[in-house]
This record gives sequence, C-alpha cells and structure tokens, in this order.
Amino acid sequence: MTDPLTDPTATAPIKTDALIIGAGPCGLFAVFELGLLDIKAHVVDVLPKVGGQCAELYPEKPIYDIPAVPRITAQGLVDALMEQIAPFGPVFTLGEMVETVEKIGDPGFRCTTDRGTVFEAKVVVIAAGGGSFQPKRPPIKGIEAFEDSSVFYAVRKMEAFRDKRLMIVGGGDSALDWVVNLHPIAHRITLVHRRDEFRAAPATVDKMRALVADRKMDLIIGQVMDLAGEGGALEAALVKTADGRMIEVLCEAMLPFFGLTMKLGPVASWGVALDGNLVKVDTEKFETSVPGLFAIGDINTYPGKLKLILSGFHEGALMAQAAARYVFPEKRVVFQYTTSSTSLQKKLGVS
Amino acid sequence: MTDPLTDPTATAPIKTDALIIGAGPCGLFAVFELGLLDIKAHVVDVLPKVGGQCAELYPEKPIYDIPAVPRITAQGLVDALMEQIAPFGPVFTLGEMVETVEKIGDPGFRCTTDRGTVFEAKVVVIAAGGGSFQPKRPPIKGIEAFEDSSVFYAVRKMEAFRDKRLMIVGGGDSALDWVVNLHPIAHRITLVHRRDEFRAAPATVDKMRALVADRKMDLIIGQVMDLAGEGGALEAALVKTADGRMIEVLCEAMLPFFGLTMKLGPVASWGVALDGNLVKVDTEKFETSVPGLFAIGDINTYPGKLKLILSGFHEGALMAQAAARYVFPEKRVVFQYTTSSTSLQKKLGVS
Repeated sequence: MTDPLTDPTATAPIKTDALIIGAGPCGLFAVFELGLLDIKAHVVDVLPKVGGQCAELYPEKPIYDIPAVPRITAQGLVDALMEQIAPFGPVFTLGEMVETVEKIGDPGFRCTTDRGTVFEAKVVVIAAGGGSFQPKRPPIKGIEAFEDSSVFYAVRKMEAFRDKRLMIVGGGDSALDWVVNLHPIAHRITLVHRRDEFRAAPATVDKMRALVADRKMDLIIGQVMDLAGEGGALEAALVKTADGRMIEVLCEAMLPFFGLTMKLGPVASWGVALDGNLVKVDTEKFETSVPGLFAIGDINTYPGKLKLILSGFHEGALMAQAAARYVFPEKRVVFQYTTSSTSLQKKLGVS
Repeated sequence: MTDPLTDPTATAPIKTDALIIGAGPCGLFAVFELGLLDIKAHVVDVLPKVGGQCAELYPEKPIYDIPAVPRITAQGLVDALMEQIAPFGPVFTLGEMVETVEKIGDPGFRCTTDRGTVFEAKVVVIAAGGGSFQPKRPPIKGIEAFEDSSVFYAVRKMEAFRDKRLMIVGGGDSALDWVVNLHPIAHRITLVHRRDEFRAAPATVDKMRALVADRKMDLIIGQVMDLAGEGGALEAALVKTADGRMIEVLCEAMLPFFGLTMKLGPVASWGVALDGNLVKVDTEKFETSVPGLFAIGDINTYPGKLKLILSGFHEGALMAQAAARYVFPEKRVVFQYTTSSTSLQKKLGVS
C-alpha cells in the first residue's frame, strides 16, 4: 500500500507488463497463466488483502466445485493460489481502487487509483468480480453534497480529523474501531447508532462505553435524518432519537459506516462495452471492446457465461495467450505444458 | 466390464440420462457438473481403468497448472476427481470402445460398443481426449485382410486360441504376458521380436526364456514381412530373421502388440462436423453440430481453444447447463452455488 501523502515516489508511474484489477481467485490465477508466458503482473485491489469477494464474504465457508478439490474453504483456495503464483513474484497494491484507465499507447494504458498511484501497463485485465466493494451510502437527505469534503466513508489519514467535532455513524467494527482510534485526536466524537446494541468486538464496545461513562464522548441512539452546512462544509446533523425527539448535533466531519456493497464502480467509465453491469467479452481472448483491455471472472459476460470460479480460470488462460501477443509482438507464443516443458518447470522453480 | 459372451443381460440397452465417452479428467468432472443438475451419467472408456491419457501415459508425473493445486500427479488428479464425483454414483463401463452413435429420439441416442454393449442416453458427451487409444497396426503387408478373423490386437477370450498355432509379435509387457498366459492353451506359440531384448517385466521375460529353453515354445528374432492364407484364415507368416534369412512359420492366429496410438477413431463416423481430427463446438454449450451431442476437453476445437485440463472443466460446466435443457425440458434450470445452496450440498452429501 502506498500513501501519496507520505511516499514521495508514489506519483512516479509503476510500470508493469500486465495490470490485474482485482485480487480474487481469477485475478490471482491470471498471474500464473501470464507468468508461464513471461508476462510480469501487478495486482491492485480495493480491499486491504488478497482474495476478493471469496475471502471477504465467506472465508471459512467450504466450496465444493473447484475441479479436483472436493472441499476447500474460500481462504484455503486463496492460500493455494498464492502458493501457486509465488514463483512469478507478483506485486500487490492493496486498499486502492483503480479509478481511471486511459489508453496511452498501442498497446499501453495508464491507470490511476483513488489514492493517486499511477500504473503504466501494456495490457490491463479487469478481474474485479462483482465490481468494487464500495461503502453503502446511508439514507441521509442531501449527503452527496458533503461527500469527500466533510463526509468520508473511509479514514485515509487520521490527522484530517484533528481537533474536529466528528460524528461517527454505525454499530459495527469499523464504526467502533474509529471511535476508539480517533478519540485522542478529534475535538469531540459523537457516535450515532440506531439501537443500543453493537455488532463490534466486545472489547471495543467496552472501551466506547467507558469513554461515554467518563463523558469523554457522546453516544446517541437514533438516526441521522438531515445535514446542515454550506458549500460542502458540514456544520450540524439532525438526529431523530429512539424516543422520537429531533436534536441538532454540531459536527464538522462525519464518518458513516453502513457496510460495503458491490458496485460496478469506475469500470463503467473506462469505455468498454457493457451489458447491464457486466463487461462484454469474446470467448476467444476474453478481450473487451477496447483492444488490450481484458475482463475475466464474474465481471464479464458472453453467451453461456456462468459465474463460476472455474470458468474464470479458463478465461485467464485464454486471455494470457492473447495478452502475450500484445506484450511480445515479435515473439511467437509457443503453447507448452507444465507437465512436459522444462522451460515452464524452470519458471515454476521445480526443475 | 460386461462380456456379451457370458453376460446374458448385456444386450439389453443400458439407459442413462447422459453417456460420457471418455473417463479422463474432463469426462470425470462432467459427472460432477451434470450431477449438480440431477443428470445421471454413465461413463465408458476404451481403457480398462479411469483417468484417460493422464493416468495412462504419465501417472506419476506432476502437473502444475491445475488451478489452486500447485502440484499434483496425474494419478492424484484422477483420484481427487473420483472422490469429488462419488456422491453422484457414476457407473463405469471400462475396456470398451463406443463404436456407433445413432440418433433415436429428440433428444435420444443409441450407442454401441465394440463388445456389443448398448446404451440409450438422452445426451451424449464426447470427452475422448486425443481420441481412442488404439493398437498400432504393424507394418506387415496385407495384414488388414486377416484382422478380426486371424489377427487380433487384444485378447477378448483366451479360449479362442485353444489348440491353435499362435504367433505373438512384440517385446513389451502385453506380448510377453500373453506368451506366458496363452502357453498352456495354445497348440504352440512362436514369439517374434525384432531384437533379443525385451521391455517387459524381467520376471515375465525369464518365464518366456525358460519356456524357450525347455523347447515348449519358439522364439524368433526377426520381423514378420508377409502373411499367407485365404479368406481371412491365416496359414503362415513369412519372417525375416535378424541374420537375413527368410523363414516361413505355420500359424493360424496372430497377436501383434506394437503399442497404442491415439486415433480419433469411430468419432469420425458419428456425423459431427470436424476440423481436422477435432470436433467443432460452440463456446456457449460446447455442443457439436448434432444437437444433444456435446464434446468437451482435448477432442473439441473452437476459436482460442487450448488443450488444457482446466479448459475442459469449464467446458463441462457450460455443457451441463445445456444438457439439462434436453434432459428436463419442462424444468427451469436454476443456477446455484455449492457454497450457498443447501439443495446442492444435499446432493453432495455434505449438508
């Protein structure tokens, strides 16, 4: 993870053969298929760890339909894939979302994340599953006008909240963790949650309760209904309490934590032909309508498409052959088997 | 394995939803994908055991490109697949080659093997890899005229050789095993091999040498050049010995064992559109030009096709969806995940 505010090199483009957007099973296995063809890959994912939807939503749930693997947990699958791609030394940029993909060559793309990291890649592989995990917007009237100036769905830099009157909304781990972590920095924190029960880790809930008991922060059981302020500068929030009163709470910043939702997200703006929320690809190369820009796994669609992990693996293998023609236009791509090719076995470190 | 000569029920058709031709990894995994959709499968393979080319040609060689399985032997892969499909109780007919596939309904096929076993299936899935393993025909002038009457490439019934003058040709396990096994039955055996070295198991070679030393059989180092006989009834073979002499050896039956070769075989006569030695399919259903007749794995071709096991798995999954529409025309096929569907988990015996 690079932080453009602290890392002076972060604005220099990171160059790679293939940029894979999405570190779920299909994105990870794509590293393997590209690696067999000597294509270096860099993987970027909005989540802070590899594994994608699988590892995020159901890490311990068994999967039964990975071929030749009668039973494996999602986390086990991700671990096995990480072991399998290790010989190719993939580089990961985690916790960042690719926002823009611009064509800068033929082939060649410049991709920029929401944290300002810039990549330059010969080919780009969208393996973003159902899209990006994005924070759910709470049902607060007019909240859009304050987003990114006073309302934030993630804490990029704790210092941004120093000496601020901060309202944190929610009852899960994110909300409670940030209450505890930002308490020493903020001027005063008000936590708003719709009921007096919290899904966060009990130890964190206890810490918050102790802060409230010591009058070092405020807890309001209720719902934020409206926001007040001008030009994106939040001044107060109107909260309807559980007993039906309307109260106005002064605050300059708000952190609502209403969970994550899957959204196609920025992909929609990259110029690829879509079919609803899915990216159209051919079944020969799994290439989008933009040459050199591929899409594999749950995010793509074609006649017969099934959202199966095993299909994403197949798509990655065929994609890699096509990518090789862009990355090494001079080289004839020779199709070889890992079982019989000494050269592939050397790449895998087993020969 | 059913023997039509001894099993009186063998001529009654075996009825199944799906007949899978080929018990290699793709054929085996197809059982799983069909099973998830309640389609019962029967698998037939020309080899006497499951696993296909993989298990036959390189059982102990590691494979590195099965997704999420960093390293597995071919035999290990086959074992894992057998475990994975066990909940669906697939039935196997091994050591038989499907020779004819006739359309008898819409959908509906009658398939007959070289041993006379008859199957009736709603859909047929060709998963025959490189084709059938078939015995190599030795370079003996006019041998075709004697095939199936005096010249045999496999021993179906040992009794067929009782009291016959039998010539066995070859130096590997098959040749030497049959020398030892048929010696008590045949009138006299002549073994012909081009050099005085044998690739068969040393113990079997020793037994053969002992029989020769005891003058209970003959060994000729040389090559069969020509055959004599009328109307398919073999009378003698002309053998050129290693020292250049031509000798005539009386014999009524011949068993040449020159190894196995992959041939498309009978598939070519089933009316499916071919591209060279491969079966053309679409990439939506992996269906051939004959509706209800599918082809998956190494035997099929389409734009972008790679002969990868992982691609055959994907092909089987999409094929199964299309097969379900033929097998259960009234039923809406609901796509479900093994991770979340209790009904699929029940079928797998894990819920």
